[in-house]
Amino acid sequence: MLEVSKNQFSVMEEKIAKQALQKAYERETSALIAKVRDRAHSLTELEDLWHLHDLLSTKRYDIDGKYAYNFSTLVFDFARLVKEGWLNLDDLQGLPSEILSKISAIARM
Amino acid sequence: MLEVSKNQFSVMEEKIAKQALQKAYERETSALIAKVRDRAHSLTELEDLWHLHDLLSTKRYDIDGKYAYNFSTLVFDFARLVKEGWLNLDDLQGLPSEILSKISAIARM
Repeated sequence: MLEVSKNQFSVMEEKIAKQALQKAYERETSALIAKVRDRAHSLTELEDLWHLHDLLSTKRYDIDGKYAYNFSTLVFDFARLVKEGWLNLDDLQGLPSEILSKISAIARM
Repeated sequence: MLEVSKNQFSVMEEKIAKQALQKAYERETSALIAKVRDRAHSLTELEDLWHLHDLLSTKRYDIDGKYAYNFSTLVFDFARLVKEGWLNLDDLQGLPSEILSKISAIARM
């Protein structure tokens, strides 16, 4: 059973989960801003602009959906963030160990 | 009658029209590249990225449609480019004077 129902989390656990999500969000968005600033230096052709536009289209869609705090998909959402490098398991310390194990296992897949 | 049929243009006039279109294209795309490079320096928030994304979405759609060489809409297309500042009437010297007058009149509207 990979779903997490709300009553599995204590107030403290919910706080840890939300803080971790916020941390991942800040890491990913900071990295994206740095990447766009960096890429902007080497813009010379219109084609470069449209590649930048494609990147922003993908990332906007991606980020809009990824950081909604949703209990029912929390294990998968966190596993994805770990896999992508925006979160590490240490950020999740304090969550129930069976949840951590599932996140860890899925992130390695 | 604002439409331009192909046989109204001599080979030389067609060449002038195409060169003017190319010139306007280069001016607008160079200005856009410079604007994006400039704006990239001051990107600090995710919201700034999404504003940049909106600008690129609009410009991509706009530029894709605007620079197709189309005889039947040429007067309007050129008038728009003059109005937007990407073309001036000097770039069009050598085109039939009645065409130039129409472009000039529409650009002032």
